[in-house]
Amino acid sequence: MRIAIDAMGGDHAPKEVVKGAMAAVKEYENIDIVLVGNESAIKEHLTDQTRITIIHTDEKIESSDSPVTAIRRKKNSSMVLAIKEVKEGRADACISAGNTGALMTGGVLIVGRIKGIERPALAPMLPTFTGDGFLLIDAGANMDSKPEHLLHYGLMGSIYMQKVRNIESPRVGLLNVGTEDDKGTELTKQAFALLKEAPINFVGNVEARDLLEGVADVVVCDGFSGNVVLKTVEGTALSLFSLLKKELTSTFFNKLAAGALKPSFKKIKEKMDYTEYGGAGLFGLQAPIIKAHGSSNETAILNSIRQTRLMLEEKVVETIKAEVIKREI
Amino acid sequence: MRIAIDAMGGDHAPKEVVKGAMAAVKEYENIDIVLVGNESAIKEHLTDQTRITIIHTDEKIESSDSPVTAIRRKKNSSMVLAIKEVKEGRADACISAGNTGALMTGGVLIVGRIKGIERPALAPMLPTFTGDGFLLIDAGANMDSKPEHLLHYGLMGSIYMQKVRNIESPRVGLLNVGTEDDKGTELTKQAFALLKEAPINFVGNVEARDLLEGVADVVVCDGFSGNVVLKTVEGTALSLFSLLKKELTSTFFNKLAAGALKPSFKKIKEKMDYTEYGGAGLFGLQAPIIKAHGSSNETAILNSIRQTRLMLEEKVVETIKAEVIKREI
Repeated sequence: MRIAIDAMGGDHAPKEVVKGAMAAVKEYENIDIVLVGNESAIKEHLTDQTRITIIHTDEKIESSDSPVTAIRRKKNSSMVLAIKEVKEGRADACISAGNTGALMTGGVLIVGRIKGIERPALAPMLPTFTGDGFLLIDAGANMDSKPEHLLHYGLMGSIYMQKVRNIESPRVGLLNVGTEDDKGTELTKQAFALLKEAPINFVGNVEARDLLEGVADVVVCDGFSGNVVLKTVEGTALSLFSLLKKELTSTFFNKLAAGALKPSFKKIKEKMDYTEYGGAGLFGLQAPIIKAHGSSNETAILNSIRQTRLMLEEKVVETIKAEVIKREI
Repeated sequence: MRIAIDAMGGDHAPKEVVKGAMAAVKEYENIDIVLVGNESAIKEHLTDQTRITIIHTDEKIESSDSPVTAIRRKKNSSMVLAIKEVKEGRADACISAGNTGALMTGGVLIVGRIKGIERPALAPMLPTFTGDGFLLIDAGANMDSKPEHLLHYGLMGSIYMQKVRNIESPRVGLLNVGTEDDKGTELTKQAFALLKEAPINFVGNVEARDLLEGVADVVVCDGFSGNVVLKTVEGTALSLFSLLKKELTSTFFNKLAAGALKPSFKKIKEKMDYTEYGGAGLFGLQAPIIKAHGSSNETAILNSIRQTRLMLEEKVVETIKAEVIKREI
């Protein structure tokens, strides 16, 4: 299999992207990687070129660029060229740690949707304190959702968790303001009825306060709410850690005691580290398009490649397509 | 002024409710309190009856009761009778730590809306790490919101923060998936346009990850998203603290070091304690109706009474009514 990677996307590009790519080809014999970006900048870090090729371009999409404009105008950007490798059949999947909106737009406009899936969804894994994590779908690809979209998210999320995270019967929950069946908005009420009839292990409504305790393997929601969940978890955890750090280094005595607890704090931070699950998949497209975290280091890129490889090996996209045909979506 | 309190609402009722009421009349000479609930249970804790009267009833609404049914059927419940004291002019405001949905329903059905405010909102204060906190409006009173509702939330929230929290020109932000003006759903786009023209200090879109850093004094959102924010903050903080506790007591050595840091941990927990701001106000009703936290202790009840007193003294409801008339809402 062949994976195209936008070598210029992310805060630590191209260095960490290149290192992650080299680590991946060393780990897996059956993958080839195409790095798209500035050749000389890439070569500065590419100490081993085994099964790695380069497509050179000087153009790149900035994180501040407007997604639609960027995809339409920057036709030679590393991101657009990487996506085109997939579209034109020279690569099987694409990874970028760059502009999320642009990658989603590029995925839809260049690679295209699976027929029947009206709205693709962005699905990151979030950490749980039980250690297994959960898939949040949609985390912001699609703003104004219809009940059918949420049904599709549930189906796609369930397939992903089964195939890639190896969970036999993934528990699919619907994000809501209470656990009773009739809670929420018109959207959640109608989506509840659809998900209940779907061929998945639907566990009903789940509340935001229980997500990190592992109440479901797949949490279905509209893109606005999903984005709010993602950023609230992130913001609360970061704020608490920074407050903790400030407090624990406020006196010499505190510093001593906190120093002794360093391994414990590290363990907690590792549990919260969602890059270990790989990047956020864009589900509902004709091929795996993966958004790696903007601050990805070598390990995060390697994990995104591992995830992409599993999605290809386990034929996640093909399974979603078959499900769409079977259910006449 | 006279405040009616549902003495049977909350996890620690009536004991902590009664203690909070006694503390409040001791602190403020200008308040009278009516405690509604089981007289003998209340009297067990009522060591000083100065300016406190009791209305006896045996009926109470349980936290598991369906809100609308409970308000309609349990006509002699402590909550319904407390709300009726306000409706019939014998009290100026009402507080309950009981069933949130029932209190909202009772507030709307019994006390009634301010003419022009189509949908009342639930507005709790959330803690920020800067220490000032912010008002989240709506946190779940109203599920399917229209742009006009969000405009009203912004106006009411701004008035509250000015009058009660003493902020001259409260910064009002709109919860969104990005800070750019054109982000979000159809709802947020239209609400943005309305809030921009409103006579408030509108600071534009704010992201969920920046809320606890104090990015705005009032955060406007639909009730579904607001509920998700509230419960995600709560869930993330609680999960992190319990993980921390488990980690820090896992070995004898850890316990020693953590023991030394106890005052620091306490300080952080106190910063996260939103009961110090009082309860969540139900805005848009003809009188202040305050939902105290379900786990309220004496101090939390006292703080809710302080807040209610300020709302009455500063004429928050009257100011909202005047604003509605001035703006021909």
